[in-house]
Amino acid sequence: MIDTNELTVQLEATLHHEIPLTLALGLTVESYDGQTLVLGAPLEPNINHKATAFAGSLNAVVTLSGWGIVWCLLKEAGITAKIVIQDSQVNYLLPVAGDFVAVCSKPDPAQVRRFQNMLLKKGLGRLELTAEIRSNSQPAVTFQGRYVAHLVKNPETEA
Amino acid sequence: MIDTNELTVQLEATLHHEIPLTLALGLTVESYDGQTLVLGAPLEPNINHKATAFAGSLNAVVTLSGWGIVWCLLKEAGITAKIVIQDSQVNYLLPVAGDFVAVCSKPDPAQVRRFQNMLLKKGLGRLELTAEIRSNSQPAVTFQGRYVAHLVKNPETEA
Repeated sequence: MIDTNELTVQLEATLHHEIPLTLALGLTVESYDGQTLVLGAPLEPNINHKATAFAGSLNAVVTLSGWGIVWCLLKEAGITAKIVIQDSQVNYLLPVAGDFVAVCSKPDPAQVRRFQNMLLKKGLGRLELTAEIRSNSQPAVTFQGRYVAHLVKNPETEA
Repeated sequence: MIDTNELTVQLEATLHHEIPLTLALGLTVESYDGQTLVLGAPLEPNINHKATAFAGSLNAVVTLSGWGIVWCLLKEAGITAKIVIQDSQVNYLLPVAGDFVAVCSKPDPAQVRRFQNMLLKKGLGRLELTAEIRSNSQPAVTFQGRYVAHLVKNPETEA
């Protein structure tokens, strides 16, 4: 059993190292309880002239929350794979006038099993996820995204 | 008739001033010919560990290309309005392994007229736009977005 606090620390380090723009976004990994991942970002580096968060920042953070859930699922299963997003649909419901979080939960276990089986059998697995941005506990952005994981056959040589 | 080169310079200054994250993205306004707007961004600040552009950066730049077309339409019509995005659908077709541009064109004139009429009559206009990210002249990301403009009744006091 992997310690979820340890995964939280590892995921934040991975995001900051692999995607330098996450530092400009002020992105942090707030929590992961084995089911739900919460990423956080402050308003200030993501502000626009109207004193609300820039849509591009909201989209980047919510997209990363889905990426992060796939990363956690793979870590827990001991699978090394490259994760990319295939498509997404985003609804901007309310302006975000303060610091915000992106919340993404694992899909139901049957979907997770199908994803892992396809990934191990075919070398490629797809997963549909929903996530949202919340500010002051209010849902402000809703997101649906499809992610694709490509199995890395020789993790040592590709690391 | 507004000079399109002058609009290009004004739009870049507006984006850099209103949305500081555009500086972190390395965003530039490449061209505007009165019909099509081209924004540019270098790979380097937007890179991920796989040496391709981060999906969040691609999304931010393509979202801004639509925002920019609405901004140009309003400037040309002499209308002051606040522009926000309502929703978007993005397909990530190919990895982007170099500098990239986002290209957005005006919709057909009938749609533009309807948008401007609604904005002036009701104080709120909606516009659907398509745009894409290209790298090495190849389409790499396709985007559909709906933007909403809210009329500013007293531009002087709100500027």
